[in-house]
Amino acid sequence: MPERTDMTDDVDNLPIDLNADLGEGFGRWHLTDDDALLSVVTSANVACGFHAGDPSTMRRVCELAAERGVVIGAQVSYRDLAGFGRRAMDVPSRELADEIAYQIGALDVFARAAGVRVAYVKPHGALYNRCVHDAEQAGAVVAGVRSASDTPLPVLGLPDSLLHEAATAAGLPTVAEAFADRAYTAHGTLVPRGTPGAVIDDSDTVVKRSLAIARDHAVTSIDGERVEVRARSLCLHGDTPSAAALARRVRSELTGAGVRFQAFA
Amino acid sequence: MPERTDMTDDVDNLPIDLNADLGEGFGRWHLTDDDALLSVVTSANVACGFHAGDPSTMRRVCELAAERGVVIGAQVSYRDLAGFGRRAMDVPSRELADEIAYQIGALDVFARAAGVRVAYVKPHGALYNRCVHDAEQAGAVVAGVRSASDTPLPVLGLPDSLLHEAATAAGLPTVAEAFADRAYTAHGTLVPRGTPGAVIDDSDTVVKRSLAIARDHAVTSIDGERVEVRARSLCLHGDTPSAAALARRVRSELTGAGVRFQAFA
Amino acid sequence: MPERTDMTDDVDNLPIDLNADLGEGFGRWHLTDDDALLSVVTSANVACGFHAGDPSTMRRVCELAAERGVVIGAQVSYRDLAGFGRRAMDVPSRELADEIAYQIGALDVFARAAGVRVAYVKPHGALYNRCVHDAEQAGAVVAGVRSASDTPLPVLGLPDSLLHEAATAAGLPTVAEAFADRAYTAHGTLVPRGTPGAVIDDSDTVVKRSLAIARDHAVTSIDGERVEVRARSLCLHGDTPSAAALARRVRSELTGAGVRFQAFA
Amino acid sequence: MPERTDMTDDVDNLPIDLNADLGEGFGRWHLTDDDALLSVVTSANVACGFHAGDPSTMRRVCELAAERGVVIGAQVSYRDLAGFGRRAMDVPSRELADEIAYQIGALDVFARAAGVRVAYVKPHGALYNRCVHDAEQAGAVVAGVRSASDTPLPVLGLPDSLLHEAATAAGLPTVAEAFADRAYTAHGTLVPRGTPGAVIDDSDTVVKRSLAIARDHAVTSIDGERVEVRARSLCLHGDTPSAAALARRVRSELTGAGVRFQAFA
Repeated sequence: MPERTDMTDDVDNLPIDLNADLGEGFGRWHLTDDDALLSVVTSANVACGFHAGDPSTMRRVCELAAERGVVIGAQVSYRDLAGFGRRAMDVPSRELADEIAYQIGALDVFARAAGVRVAYVKPHGALYNRCVHDAEQAGAVVAGVRSASDTPLPVLGLPDSLLHEAATAAGLPTVAEAFADRAYTAHGTLVPRGTPGAVIDDSDTVVKRSLAIARDHAVTSIDGERVEVRARSLCLHGDTPSAAALARRVRSELTGAGVRFQAFA
Repeated sequence: MPERTDMTDDVDNLPIDLNADLGEGFGRWHLTDDDALLSVVTSANVACGFHAGDPSTMRRVCELAAERGVVIGAQVSYRDLAGFGRRAMDVPSRELADEIAYQIGALDVFARAAGVRVAYVKPHGALYNRCVHDAEQAGAVVAGVRSASDTPLPVLGLPDSLLHEAATAAGLPTVAEAFADRAYTAHGTLVPRGTPGAVIDDSDTVVKRSLAIARDHAVTSIDGERVEVRARSLCLHGDTPSAAALARRVRSELTGAGVRFQAFA
Repeated sequence: MPERTDMTDDVDNLPIDLNADLGEGFGRWHLTDDDALLSVVTSANVACGFHAGDPSTMRRVCELAAERGVVIGAQVSYRDLAGFGRRAMDVPSRELADEIAYQIGALDVFARAAGVRVAYVKPHGALYNRCVHDAEQAGAVVAGVRSASDTPLPVLGLPDSLLHEAATAAGLPTVAEAFADRAYTAHGTLVPRGTPGAVIDDSDTVVKRSLAIARDHAVTSIDGERVEVRARSLCLHGDTPSAAALARRVRSELTGAGVRFQAFA
Repeated sequence: MPERTDMTDDVDNLPIDLNADLGEGFGRWHLTDDDALLSVVTSANVACGFHAGDPSTMRRVCELAAERGVVIGAQVSYRDLAGFGRRAMDVPSRELADEIAYQIGALDVFARAAGVRVAYVKPHGALYNRCVHDAEQAGAVVAGVRSASDTPLPVLGLPDSLLHEAATAAGLPTVAEAFADRAYTAHGTLVPRGTPGAVIDDSDTVVKRSLAIARDHAVTSIDGERVEVRARSLCLHGDTPSAAALARRVRSELTGAGVRFQAFA
């Protein structure tokens, strides 16, 4: 059995990483406030052209990220511009692995041009969700990541996901992330979207839960119990108009509370 | 003025390179007989997904090319699957440069996985034709090539093209290619398609002209005069049913005539 | 409960329809021998641009079909050129319905220009398979079909599918098809691909089974038993090199055996 | 010579039409405030999926337009999502005509479902500009429009354009439009973008010029002279954040000044 290299193991002693999806426009269309978010996050999940992300946007985000010391990750997706990568697809394994590698390579050219490299990978949307429980697709994503780099790229995602299991089996580091705007069950898993209370809209609560995750490694579950949430990275959402403002506030208040920030990669 | 590094300079003493467009299928659709052509050519212009070339095809061609010692080049194109990259597009310079870099990066991931690297770049279709005479687009392609690699990648194309001029100005090596199935003017330029006699269909003639280019560095022009054609690479077409057979015959007969073959890169 | 209008009810007394997928190229790529198949089939399932089918191909197929009296159906698909519509997708219902309507409308413009109309609808590939057992997507396809035409367009597919159930519930006629190159269970359902013996390659057997379906409304099941297969249409595959020749042979031998051919629509 | 049926002829006695580009989002991306603009304009140029416009957006815009009595036009484009149809393309005539017909048919399905029809056609972006001076593409667009409808659909565009010339020659009505936010030369043609002063940003000036066009059929040219601008339709831009507010103001102030509004179709 391969040795598990989960960067989350020492989460108690580590600063927290802030990650957000960036570069999610396409040509004329804009979605994420890349400039503002790149002043807040420590890791940028950059869209690679399959659900969003035209080449010029990818280049600009990479340049700005490199300039500000934000680490670049490949936000890989199903090939689905029309559905923004939110429609699960039964892509055969080998084909999916190749699509993942293609995206990483395409992004890496801009990272290299900016003097850095793609430093981790995070699946997007429906692929992210699918890889939590689908061993075949999780394995395909990991195969794609492995083929795309000589160095083992960390895979960012949910702890206890089959994606992390497949990554570990393949010798790739895994990084656990948590969500301050999502409710957790008493077992530490996410309450499924659609369940009442699953998504937390109130920004004060989001800030408070961000602090709880970053400092205390625990949140109050939807049942009112304290539940441990060990995450090396906190995911901030970037695709709403108020996203950048909330992200800034999270960073500011956590900084005030003594939390240190640092990219995991 | 930058020093010109045209690999064609010593063409008299050099073996000839054979290049062809490969991997020009997309998903369910196949066009080029990649397996057969990879047994003939010394350089493979691999489609990168913009006019043709899905990730799995790109990987397979790279694997087979690496296995057989065929050098891999990025066949970059306008983003135009529906038109197979044959419709000229007014793409703004910065955008075009980024699209070129994206394609090179995407292909390079499969070349690297196969143990090699993208070793040169050749524009496809309408972009190839446009870059002969459009300084702005030629400059954009060269800018994209430069940003995509730390090492200066050679640019394969027509001598006397603005593409080669821009490449030289930017410090990129240039490689001149010739076409055995195209008529030449007395000035050594191609007779435009559409002109009667511009395209040579007879395979015996194509073989004969291939030899003339490779060994004598000259062909008979459309006016019946001997015209010098100095090319380091001979382009074979791969997208017709009989393409592989003709390519095999060219290689075989030229070998019999003492011509040596070697990739330029 | 809505009255069932299955055109298959009187199958004993009706001529048989021959349908095939046509127009499945895209731009530079060709797949189906449209010209040859349009001399054999009575109904053409024309690709509408989502898995295959560029506008010019659609126009040409419609013109030729109209000229030869072949009925035009819309072969609707997931939006997936890269996967040729063979990758199941979780498309939300309303979105799927709209995608179906879009495709029908786009094809109908060419049918009208050729003096006819889109006369039926058949889902393609993964959507076809999904709609056999997925009530939500079957309902979405039917909703799309209904919104696309004032007259109730027949839906061509497998009997006992949820697609036909949804069509009947919505007041659309259904047409059952059978496959001469697929094995059947003793219950009259298709043996799933992947099971040994599921696909029949031998052309003599395919011709024999075509006759059995068209004349006797029964085939020998994979277990060796006689099983009833009541179909108003026989699906011929068009995407292999020998497809047109086999289709011609089926038509010819069935004609010789006294089978009459006529489109259902 | 065909009789010219320019709906602009009686412009003095006619109410003015207000047109704007709508439905220019794609999937997750939004651009135009369709709801707000549909309360202001009398004609909606609806994107048809080639530069923008997914099927669900097209349906929603058609439903809302029909509900509010806004006339639906097909805003046809080059196939270029990545470039938002702003990159001129050398599309062969027959292919372009078919692409135009495809888009009109796709939109018409949603117009019909909403109880109305596509009532006119307006090219978008680079195609609009190209058809001003390119006779071949203008002819192809007109051929596509003709093949897409039994009734002759009006073509909306610049007077004195080759598009209008081709439309007239083909028996299609033409409708001239004017722009309140663009400077005019003393000859009544638009000052090319890029020239200083070509685009008018100040909203007071835009409102004033709207009134001048609608009521006086004249504006002050960039040289300070009065120049006649005879237009049956005034184009309002919809793709900026303040577009809807400015459009509302134009309609309100022109209404106050006694201008009547009515779609041309």
